[in-house]
Amino acid sequence: MTEHSLWRFSRALHRAINERQFTDIEPLIDEDIDWTVHGPVDLFPFLGSRNGKAAVMQVLRQIADKVRVHRFDRESIILGVEQASSMLRYSLTVLDTNKPLRLRLAHFAQFRDGKLSRMRILIDTYDLVEQAFGLPLRRPQLAASA
Amino acid sequence: MTEHSLWRFSRALHRAINERQFTDIEPLIDEDIDWTVHGPVDLFPFLGSRNGKAAVMQVLRQIADKVRVHRFDRESIILGVEQASSMLRYSLTVLDTNKPLRLRLAHFAQFRDGKLSRMRILIDTYDLVEQAFGLPLRRPQLAASA
Repeated sequence: MTEHSLWRFSRALHRAINERQFTDIEPLIDEDIDWTVHGPVDLFPFLGSRNGKAAVMQVLRQIADKVRVHRFDRESIILGVEQASSMLRYSLTVLDTNKPLRLRLAHFAQFRDGKLSRMRILIDTYDLVEQAFGLPLRRPQLAASA
Repeated sequence: MTEHSLWRFSRALHRAINERQFTDIEPLIDEDIDWTVHGPVDLFPFLGSRNGKAAVMQVLRQIADKVRVHRFDRESIILGVEQASSMLRYSLTVLDTNKPLRLRLAHFAQFRDGKLSRMRILIDTYDLVEQAFGLPLRRPQLAASA
């Protein structure tokens, strides 16, 4: 039984982010990849949609410039044939500020011939915004009445 | 081939929310269900963790008191043996205000003997907070300097 594509991709992704070594991940991305990380693109430019390998490689470099992965826990996972989804809890370090950042995300990955061809990622963005812009965030009720 | 537990649960859930008919869903929830919807519990009390069928039935009634489902699109899905995950885009109506609300969520469901025994849900909460408390939300940079 061969290893599921998710595990190879996951190792390569973390190596790309933490060591800025992109040689492992580059061949694991389909030329026509359809990639979206949902969230407020105006606050975090590495969110949003990217089409094609070059654009996805670029955004991975942007992410690697921003954060290091300290640890992650896979809280839920479902593996299918050339498909995988999981919910992950990340502990990151933001490189600019050397501050810790925790975030939870869910991803849905589709592989074609072992290469990532479609990715959808949903992040607990409110929690992310709170941490990135200071904790606790001014509550929207208060902001609205300010 | 029997129907996947997800489909029966999904129909019963939408009937519970939209028609306040809880008779279909009640037998589809395991007595010892472990349920968590991640998000800011202080802003939305129906988020958070619930243990056991009674607590989950109560939170479903709270949700049914708050919203109606207008439509939903299943953008990604992976089915496993007694497992299912999907990413859904909902168009809701908030009953208090009769206002539309769109939200995207990812769920990871585990079934035991056809009953839901574990559920984890991640919501695009920043988008939700923006819509629920007025659009556009005051950006955190502005709030912090106000």
